[in-house]
Amino acid sequence: MLFHVEMVVSLPHDMPEDVANEIKTRERQYAQDLQTQGKWRHLWRIAGSYANVSIFDVESNSELHELLSNLPLFPYMDITVRPLCRHPSSIRDDDR
Amino acid sequence: MLFHVEMVVSLPHDMPEDVANEIKTRERQYAQDLQTQGKWRHLWRIAGSYANVSIFDVESNSELHELLSNLPLFPYMDITVRPLCRHPSSIRDDDR
Amino acid sequence: MLFHVEMVVSLPHDMPEDVANEIKTRERQYAQDLQTQGKWRHLWRIAGSYANVSIFDVESNSELHELLSNLPLFPYMDITVRPLCRHPSSIRDDDR
Amino acid sequence: MLFHVEMVVSLPHDMPEDVANEIKTRERQYAQDLQTQGKWRHLWRIAGSYANVSIFDVESNSELHELLSNLPLFPYMDITVRPLCRHPSSIRDDDR
Amino acid sequence: MLFHVEMVVSLPHDMPEDVANEIKTRERQYAQDLQTQGKWRHLWRIAGSYANVSIFDVESNSELHELLSNLPLFPYMDITVRPLCRHPSSIRDDDR
Amino acid sequence: MLFHVEMVVSLPHDMPEDVANEIKTRERQYAQDLQTQGKWRHLWRIAGSYANVSIFDVESNSELHELLSNLPLFPYMDITVRPLCRHPSSIRDDDR
Amino acid sequence: MLFHVEMVVSLPHDMPEDVANEIKTRERQYAQDLQTQGKWRHLWRIAGSYANVSIFDVESNSELHELLSNLPLFPYMDITVRPLCRHPSSIRDDDR
Amino acid sequence: MLFHVEMVVSLPHDMPEDVANEIKTRERQYAQDLQTQGKWRHLWRIAGSYANVSIFDVESNSELHELLSNLPLFPYMDITVRPLCRHPSSIRDDDR
Amino acid sequence: MLFHVEMVVSLPHDMPEDVANEIKTRERQYAQDLQTQGKWRHLWRIAGSYANVSIFDVESNSELHELLSNLPLFPYMDITVRPLCRHPSSIRDDDR
Amino acid sequence: MLFHVEMVVSLPHDMPEDVANEIKTRERQYAQDLQTQGKWRHLWRIAGSYANVSIFDVESNSELHELLSNLPLFPYMDITVRPLCRHPSSIRDDDR
Repeated sequence: MLFHVEMVVSLPHDMPEDVANEIKTRERQYAQDLQTQGKWRHLWRIAGSYANVSIFDVESNSELHELLSNLPLFPYMDITVRPLCRHPSSIRDDDR
Repeated sequence: MLFHVEMVVSLPHDMPEDVANEIKTRERQYAQDLQTQGKWRHLWRIAGSYANVSIFDVESNSELHELLSNLPLFPYMDITVRPLCRHPSSIRDDDR
Repeated sequence: MLFHVEMVVSLPHDMPEDVANEIKTRERQYAQDLQTQGKWRHLWRIAGSYANVSIFDVESNSELHELLSNLPLFPYMDITVRPLCRHPSSIRDDDR
Repeated sequence: MLFHVEMVVSLPHDMPEDVANEIKTRERQYAQDLQTQGKWRHLWRIAGSYANVSIFDVESNSELHELLSNLPLFPYMDITVRPLCRHPSSIRDDDR
Repeated sequence: MLFHVEMVVSLPHDMPEDVANEIKTRERQYAQDLQTQGKWRHLWRIAGSYANVSIFDVESNSELHELLSNLPLFPYMDITVRPLCRHPSSIRDDDR
Repeated sequence: MLFHVEMVVSLPHDMPEDVANEIKTRERQYAQDLQTQGKWRHLWRIAGSYANVSIFDVESNSELHELLSNLPLFPYMDITVRPLCRHPSSIRDDDR
Repeated sequence: MLFHVEMVVSLPHDMPEDVANEIKTRERQYAQDLQTQGKWRHLWRIAGSYANVSIFDVESNSELHELLSNLPLFPYMDITVRPLCRHPSSIRDDDR
Repeated sequence: MLFHVEMVVSLPHDMPEDVANEIKTRERQYAQDLQTQGKWRHLWRIAGSYANVSIFDVESNSELHELLSNLPLFPYMDITVRPLCRHPSSIRDDDR
Repeated sequence: MLFHVEMVVSLPHDMPEDVANEIKTRERQYAQDLQTQGKWRHLWRIAGSYANVSIFDVESNSELHELLSNLPLFPYMDITVRPLCRHPSSIRDDDR
Repeated sequence: MLFHVEMVVSLPHDMPEDVANEIKTRERQYAQDLQTQGKWRHLWRIAGSYANVSIFDVESNSELHELLSNLPLFPYMDITVRPLCRHPSSIRDDDR
């Protein structure tokens, strides 16, 4: 089941650089693990912004929330979720 | 080059049903042609709305505009475009 | 799986009264059928508005979209969907 | 009498973790007490957000305000209240 | 129990003048009846707008919705409702 | 002459509690004095918010600004002012 | 007493040109009369828009509403009113 | 003197095609004349929209308004104007 | 050439009072100098807000920007600029 | 390929002046280098704001993002990007 997720990051300006870097390193690892598992299907940067557009493929709303709320950057993100479904004009079956 | 495109459709309530159906049939054919060509990479319905989220893969802004402005439903759509690029944490090279 | 759905209705002012009534009668029957089946869990009127807040309990995003897009009033509604999940402080297991 | 309440939480980033935890523990206890009393009828997490949608069942606007303003997280919440009433198409008498 | 209600009127430009006048006459009579009964406590015009701010004093959300949805101008109004309660600094007991 | 005034309070989270209490005590005294003088005609709490809706009865815009800008909480408030006048359907002469 | 008034005009596209012209002629005459009387102190066009920014000088909110609601273009305008008062740094006493 | 102008076009859906074409032909001629004169410095299409971003180079606000209000599409456009000036980091003197 | 300028001031709550007062004193002197020179034509307080509406009369966009960016309160202001021109119904030639 | 980019700067009020100046100096150098290379085609100040409107000419979305995210002021900017293309009524070929 697919979900459209937008994440906008805003780190506090007074966060020490090493703290920020440590969080970003964990974030990247976490994101890559979920992509490898197939749960984080797509991950794109919005040009010019510290933000991304993502497609998640999960079993349920609960699984989605668990994945998102465990993001290392979660406390510093504004997240918007929209449920997707297959478009009747789509030619791809796995864009379910 | 990828673009994130949202399309919200609103047909005038007084459009005759056969006119609407004819436009929708052409729209579907047009969308499927572009998907087959690889230019319209993803096409999802937003659950509960007469709207979609799409990913286009084109050579330039001009090509994108030409594809979108030729949509049979273009005069009845509110379209928002955002340029995407590869996310540094993405594991997929073709999510360029 | 629960979804929070808001529906705001705006009928065209020039719709004949009997047409409006016929649509509303079908809408009520449809809504009551879905409630009886347990798919439309809650349905509340927002005081002072021709609008409702609803909770749907469905298997998937696709089922949700199918139920909503078949509403007789669908062409005259502005619908907003938000996925819900169980709150960690909830005492009720079936508020899943 | 039912009210639709949305609560969005934003804790200051510099709040010490033990202070935050102590407030959250009290919040959970408070929320569960009100649910047990039947005053906080439903409590759902909005997937992907540190926010909830709730249904309160109270005697009056004043009781609602008293319950909400005593939330331990109240100073850190943005709260929106909308009065609900029974929908004419509802099949459930207690969705009053 | 008090509610703050804002009503913004927008009549279709092609409504015949006698139809508009007949609706407005019924609206005025209805508004004055509710004021006489004490249910429509205050009614003010917002300077420069075809809009009003009102205070209703009713037993419940349901009564409020019934009163508002029976306004002759209801189909042509955009209505916003907010529940009020006594302010701790108020010196007037009946501003309950 | 009546004005509709909305005040939304947001105290800085790091304001010491005794400072906050001292300001609130002065605010309450100030509000009650103006109510006694008849200048602050109505004062209601918006349920669920640290905000109020008020009706002021003053001689001029300048008097209104002087009263509002002297509120002890003024530096911490977001204030919206709208001029009111008697509604043609009002039955109360002093809702001038 | 001064008020800041913004008026945005939107005439229906199907209004016959002679009807529009007749309304505009009356509007101009009305505006010039009020300017001559000193009640409509300033009248500026916002460059690029069918809209104006105006300063009115009236005795009361009621007088302002009466002047505005009698504008021949009133049914086709979106009007915003804000009360002004003398700025403490102003060097001009009559910018009261 | 430079101005940033955005124009969003929305033609009524019931405008006959030949009327629309005649207006667009005049619009194009008018736009090209102003570009040739150097007054309409830049004209870009916003990809995916029936809208443009333009830079005008005029003597005054009045000249700008006169040029814009004479656009054949003016009655069907939503126009936003922002005054520009030379940026201190610009390397081009004529980006005045 | 006239410009409509709105300035909303928000001083940081932790700015020492003497620093704030020193800035405000310079701001007032600066504003009065520009008014004396005829460049800051009108300056009004918006009732109930720490904000003003002003009319500037300058030679160019650049002069306007220079005047505004030198305001002592500039770093603490949210400023909105709109170009004005003479309204065809104005009776005052100097409202150019 | 052209992009319309708006940048709004907001420096934290507690940033030491020498730190701010050092960042601004690097920003200016960076901006002038990109202008010299032809990648930052236009750069205008929005009158009255600490903001600019820019036109970038780049090979791809990725190049645009790389240029923007390397701006020394990037962490303190709110950036909006819109893809442009040649307007059919443009007379300039290089406004591609």
